[in-house]
Amino acid sequence: MPAASITTVPVPLGDRAYDIFVGRDLLHEAGARIAALGARAAAIVTDAHVGPLYAETLAQSLKQQGLRAAIVTVPAGEATKSYASLETVCDAVLEAKIERGDLVVALGGGVVGDLAGFAAAVVRRGVRFVQVPTTLLSQVDSSVGGKTGINSRHGKNLVGAFHQPSLVLADTALLDTLPLREMRAGYAEVVKYGLIDDAAFFAWCEKNWQGVFAGGPERDEAVAQSCRAKAAVVVRDEREDGDRALLNLGHTFGHALERITRYESARLVHGEGVAIGLCLAFRFSASLGLCPEADAARVEAHLAATGLPTRLAQVSGGCGTVDELLDAMAQDKKVKGGALTFILARGIGKSFIAPGIAVDSVRAFLEKEINASRP
Amino acid sequence: MPAASITTVPVPLGDRAYDIFVGRDLLHEAGARIAALGARAAAIVTDAHVGPLYAETLAQSLKQQGLRAAIVTVPAGEATKSYASLETVCDAVLEAKIERGDLVVALGGGVVGDLAGFAAAVVRRGVRFVQVPTTLLSQVDSSVGGKTGINSRHGKNLVGAFHQPSLVLADTALLDTLPLREMRAGYAEVVKYGLIDDAAFFAWCEKNWQGVFAGGPERDEAVAQSCRAKAAVVVRDEREDGDRALLNLGHTFGHALERITRYESARLVHGEGVAIGLCLAFRFSASLGLCPEADAARVEAHLAATGLPTRLAQVSGGCGTVDELLDAMAQDKKVKGGALTFILARGIGKSFIAPGIAVDSVRAFLEKEINASRP
Repeated sequence: MPAASITTVPVPLGDRAYDIFVGRDLLHEAGARIAALGARAAAIVTDAHVGPLYAETLAQSLKQQGLRAAIVTVPAGEATKSYASLETVCDAVLEAKIERGDLVVALGGGVVGDLAGFAAAVVRRGVRFVQVPTTLLSQVDSSVGGKTGINSRHGKNLVGAFHQPSLVLADTALLDTLPLREMRAGYAEVVKYGLIDDAAFFAWCEKNWQGVFAGGPERDEAVAQSCRAKAAVVVRDEREDGDRALLNLGHTFGHALERITRYESARLVHGEGVAIGLCLAFRFSASLGLCPEADAARVEAHLAATGLPTRLAQVSGGCGTVDELLDAMAQDKKVKGGALTFILARGIGKSFIAPGIAVDSVRAFLEKEINASRP
Repeated sequence: MPAASITTVPVPLGDRAYDIFVGRDLLHEAGARIAALGARAAAIVTDAHVGPLYAETLAQSLKQQGLRAAIVTVPAGEATKSYASLETVCDAVLEAKIERGDLVVALGGGVVGDLAGFAAAVVRRGVRFVQVPTTLLSQVDSSVGGKTGINSRHGKNLVGAFHQPSLVLADTALLDTLPLREMRAGYAEVVKYGLIDDAAFFAWCEKNWQGVFAGGPERDEAVAQSCRAKAAVVVRDEREDGDRALLNLGHTFGHALERITRYESARLVHGEGVAIGLCLAFRFSASLGLCPEADAARVEAHLAATGLPTRLAQVSGGCGTVDELLDAMAQDKKVKGGALTFILARGIGKSFIAPGIAVDSVRAFLEKEINASRP
């Protein structure tokens, strides 16, 4: 059956240009859209959570269009972004006789997208791939922009490739069964796009977030607008030499919290770290006199309304000491002459890259934040 | 000390353009040339044969220019082109704190170049790399053109990336200590460039090959001319969508022989397979009435004069049956409707891509070849 209402977001990257389709029930007609790319075969890479729900539907849809379709299932979870899984997936894709003109289809969240996209980048020195993201986080963030990769013992995403997908199908109906906590975590990235450079979209989020969570047309609109925002940044700076750093708003603090909680999802997931990080970035900007206190308060009020954490004290098991936080941040960033580069804001929708932020001023801010959290 | 005479071969690939320098004793001044690329640190990847001979010289040369230099040593041999070695090298490069602006330097033969180049392509989603090839084969073939990769259990070089080096330093003095058999094997690829499209260069080879082996100025000229020839093909077809296939002259038969001898270098090395393959390609062309018999005889006479094998009967331990050879060829090529694509020749320097060669005609030719070899 044709999807009721589909939004197309073009990503105009020259000879690597592609479209993102956003809408409900895209999965059922995925075969026709994927077949239009002209391949004869596809290897569907999915995980043990998502595969049983959707892989067979997708495979049937491809077969109806005359494509061979194989299903490759990896374990769910961040540990799957490993060298060992890369080998498993590459060999399985080769076993499925995927040639240069054929496709890898990533069906899952960010882990599957990053891993399958990287495998597609290197099998036969590069085959095309399609993203079918199944979480809000991957629909609005990781499936767009071409960053693929795995984790090294030296850090996350340190081994990978820039490899743009040939097509992204964001079926918003797949989010109906997403756990609320994962929905919220993805939503933190949606809000981020408003905070970076689109105050009107942030205001729209304040008004419409319940529809986004409930699965109304607001959800499609939020996903499409997020993809547009990310695509615009990626088109300006595909390989992250400049502007793309704006997408890291909230992420310096967020990554530090993920490190301190050892990436244990029971304690903190990425989007929760980002939510706290967004609030910290705005409060830090306010404390430096850059941003009205009222804007920082408004950011916190909205994220808290959706049930996201906004304060260091909300990190399960504790957020560590100021020194531990600074250490964890230094692993993410290069400290040059006692100074760091941050993404700060002059207000909602007015974020900017701020080099030369003194470590001492970060320390003073974090001490205030931690003390404020004490009972 | 400055090298006496250095030839520069430009590879004009737009924003991926680079130079190949060819000459004696380039290793000693490598630091200055590499430092000119603007990095602050380099990870030298080498193997257990080459490392003890040259890695410290290269590291010192880099340090004199103010670069940090780390040495990463992998086992020698084809088995090193593995997923496990990729992990080892990537993690070692990260351990050496190589950032986006820094370098990986491949110091060794084709195995090291392919592995280190692939690691450079994926560490931090791509850092630059420099090739310092130490065998004739890698100086005239694998170090030029940007193909990098590892082997899969499904076949050789099936996982990798197109990643052009930023600089190639071919120090021809390093070949002084190369075993004669490896020298000959590399020389088969030199001759190939003449056979593809440069009859004058083939005639030059017939006259000057002893100087190439002995290490006179003829060696530098042969390496430089081979690099020029390969660069010209790569510039026309960087990602092997067309013309680059000409470089496979002699390789369809050669790869089949490597497969049949299970890549056991005691039985056959790549260049020996290519030498026999070049002779077979010319004799096959002659048997199809495409090429003068005299040209095929001249190819064989020259390769035999240098000590290279030219006949199936010379494969140590046997070349297998006709069916085994055809099977091994089918693994390399797609057989479409009983036909294969070959690189054939209308004469010396007149090679062309020949699609639609009937498997039956290949079979008849191979039967004749094998019977002719029988005592």
